[in-house]
Amino acid sequence: MAKRKSIKFGAIIHGVGGNISAWRHPEVPADASVNLGFYKQQAQTAEAGKFDLVFIADGLYINEKSIPHFLNRFEPITILSALAAITSKIGLVGTLSSSYAEPFTVARQFGSLDHISGGRAGWNVVTSPLEGSANNYGKKEHPTHDERYKIAEEFLEVTRGLWDSWEDDAFVRDKEAGVFFDPSKMHRLDHKGEYFSVQGPLNIARSKQGHPVIFQAGSSESGKRLAGKAADAVFTGHENIEEAKAFYKEVKERTVAEGRSADDIVIFPGIGPIIGRTVEEAERKYQELAGLVSIENALNYLGRFFDHHDFSQYPLDGPFPELGDLGSNSFRSGTDKIKQTAKANNLTLRQVALQSATPRGQFIGTPEKIADLIQQWHEEEAADGFIIHSSIPSGLKDFVELVVPILQERGIYRTEYESDTLRGNLGLPIPENRYAKQKVNS
Amino acid sequence: MAKRKSIKFGAIIHGVGGNISAWRHPEVPADASVNLGFYKQQAQTAEAGKFDLVFIADGLYINEKSIPHFLNRFEPITILSALAAITSKIGLVGTLSSSYAEPFTVARQFGSLDHISGGRAGWNVVTSPLEGSANNYGKKEHPTHDERYKIAEEFLEVTRGLWDSWEDDAFVRDKEAGVFFDPSKMHRLDHKGEYFSVQGPLNIARSKQGHPVIFQAGSSESGKRLAGKAADAVFTGHENIEEAKAFYKEVKERTVAEGRSADDIVIFPGIGPIIGRTVEEAERKYQELAGLVSIENALNYLGRFFDHHDFSQYPLDGPFPELGDLGSNSFRSGTDKIKQTAKANNLTLRQVALQSATPRGQFIGTPEKIADLIQQWHEEEAADGFIIHSSIPSGLKDFVELVVPILQERGIYRTEYESDTLRGNLGLPIPENRYAKQKVNS
Repeated sequence: MAKRKSIKFGAIIHGVGGNISAWRHPEVPADASVNLGFYKQQAQTAEAGKFDLVFIADGLYINEKSIPHFLNRFEPITILSALAAITSKIGLVGTLSSSYAEPFTVARQFGSLDHISGGRAGWNVVTSPLEGSANNYGKKEHPTHDERYKIAEEFLEVTRGLWDSWEDDAFVRDKEAGVFFDPSKMHRLDHKGEYFSVQGPLNIARSKQGHPVIFQAGSSESGKRLAGKAADAVFTGHENIEEAKAFYKEVKERTVAEGRSADDIVIFPGIGPIIGRTVEEAERKYQELAGLVSIENALNYLGRFFDHHDFSQYPLDGPFPELGDLGSNSFRSGTDKIKQTAKANNLTLRQVALQSATPRGQFIGTPEKIADLIQQWHEEEAADGFIIHSSIPSGLKDFVELVVPILQERGIYRTEYESDTLRGNLGLPIPENRYAKQKVNS
Repeated sequence: MAKRKSIKFGAIIHGVGGNISAWRHPEVPADASVNLGFYKQQAQTAEAGKFDLVFIADGLYINEKSIPHFLNRFEPITILSALAAITSKIGLVGTLSSSYAEPFTVARQFGSLDHISGGRAGWNVVTSPLEGSANNYGKKEHPTHDERYKIAEEFLEVTRGLWDSWEDDAFVRDKEAGVFFDPSKMHRLDHKGEYFSVQGPLNIARSKQGHPVIFQAGSSESGKRLAGKAADAVFTGHENIEEAKAFYKEVKERTVAEGRSADDIVIFPGIGPIIGRTVEEAERKYQELAGLVSIENALNYLGRFFDHHDFSQYPLDGPFPELGDLGSNSFRSGTDKIKQTAKANNLTLRQVALQSATPRGQFIGTPEKIADLIQQWHEEEAADGFIIHSSIPSGLKDFVELVVPILQERGIYRTEYESDTLRGNLGLPIPENRYAKQKVNS
């Protein structure tokens, strides 16, 4: 089974926090989600820690029950482009939905970000879980889960085709002879498919990493299929190492079954380490965060995964309610997990809600404990790397200052970047240009 | 008639040049169109010259006859976002077509750029002149000129509505009380129109300039109508001061007729000054540029305005050919002007082609002469400001170092920025939030 010798790290930057009430923490700038200084500081901290990438999540629908960070936040393409100008080595990965966009525009914007950053761009292809997104894009209905993935697959195929519009040596730029480009190395895609019809060529060249790195973040059956077939990296989430190992094995096997190498895909579980110099300090930090969440907020947050279902109608200390198929067309893998965990552990509604709002996870404790766990997950093939999310800004700083040196000391994490590109640092191959390849093979 | 006391300036940055062969000039980095260092240097030069804004043009279709800059260039949203992080006062204006985009995405991206830049964003609303654009966006046909403007008008109305989703004081962010926002100050647009159906609210707040500055760049009848009704600024182009004065007067009158103040719109003719310390040096610079263009390239370039018409079929030294309606559904105002100028001056095809490829204009000469012309255009109400385009990078530097000090000396151009926002520097009002206004009026 493939495994990178050196662990990979990403940092998700999400303003006032993925935690529903983290914005109340004294340390969090309450406008962090639209504060360039905050994003800059977090990205530069991650770069100082030699992280492979920063990650910007996204969504296309809000209502009055949405969590604070979702209500008022930077759009990924813009904030990543800004960060490209003020960082030099770290990868820049952002979510963009294939359900409500045009391949020509998406290929251009990520292609342009890839040039601006010198080959550090990555696109997390999502299909938009929230049904309300359709209303913001003039669509009668949100496509079904399966159809969204069919759209995503074709969208990605078109986008990759557009990125190959120009062979790498197409731009001759011979001033003396007056030859700017070689027309035989410019290619029209002429794609006509089920969902898209796109002529090309794209009006931007390939960058030095060929194509931006493709992330995939859905853990449903369709998500795993797309990952095996077409993704360079997977952003996932697991309750424990057994679950993570099973997922890792399955995705690597699917990748190989698609005729690719197991090394061609990098698997990143997300973890939210809470680090204390002592066990007590870590516990105190967790309690401080958890204490910011009211039960009303926690119920709201939980409802979001289930089509904004109103959980306040059930007894708080009764069993987690039976919900049928609710939520299965939006965050399918997330809602399945919540239901299973509740059932397996006989949890009450209050317990499920509070745990969802402030997930505790096992990555809590001293730097040594966190480093041990990371090493274990990596060695036992549960992860190639991790996306670190911190509910408060100092979480990332603690990780970089306290955990990273231990991993470096153990020789399982880089002390310097190996490359200027994201593919280079992740150890991913540069995709061959499809047209140049045809010429070689013909 | 309204006129700003201080002249306004923008700098269009277009990589290897709007001039078809400028990339061959020894001074131009041949990869300038995808070179962040080049854009950074030009933007910082303009900012050192206290310019109001930089301007990034765009297009959605290329073929093998496109000019070099169009083949491989940065996409505007991404490069402007990058420049936002490395400039501090200058406005950041970019072209984005309303014919092939979604209002929710466009509102978000410009809204986000506006936050990243601290209120310096501007959107040049264009309707995509090139018919081939439809093929890159899966559309059966390119909408007609009139329909494109109807779409643009509704698109802009929706976008402005989305920008008002949140009243300025909606985000309370009271950590103690746990109140992040005031739901009564969050608004759903619920737009249902002829072309768009968009619910909202937008997931980003208004910036400190309220809405990004809206530019309009079409000089056709439909373009002028849209400008008077909805634009904050107009980017135009004129052969001479008489034409510019007539356009200026007409657009200001249309603006007043729409119930707005003549001060509410800023008119920017584009000029391409060629500056020499002596008349001879300026002339030498022009000839150097013109000498880079072959007649074949010039015919190609001319053809682009007329649906890629093949002009090589006509005698070079015969009269400019009769073309009927060709080109009227793409660059209407541009093709009309070429035809009229050719007829009025009895120009041959060769003359028209070479002049189109290397426009000479009247802004050529010593710094004093350029300053005099600028002052005259401004005083005689032909312009509120100018968008400066330079075929070679030192053109902008010359303007900032040689012309700007003269204008400052004469007291008709700023020596310091008046504001941190683009609206503030342009002297434009901050649009009232439509919902806050309703509350006041009800």
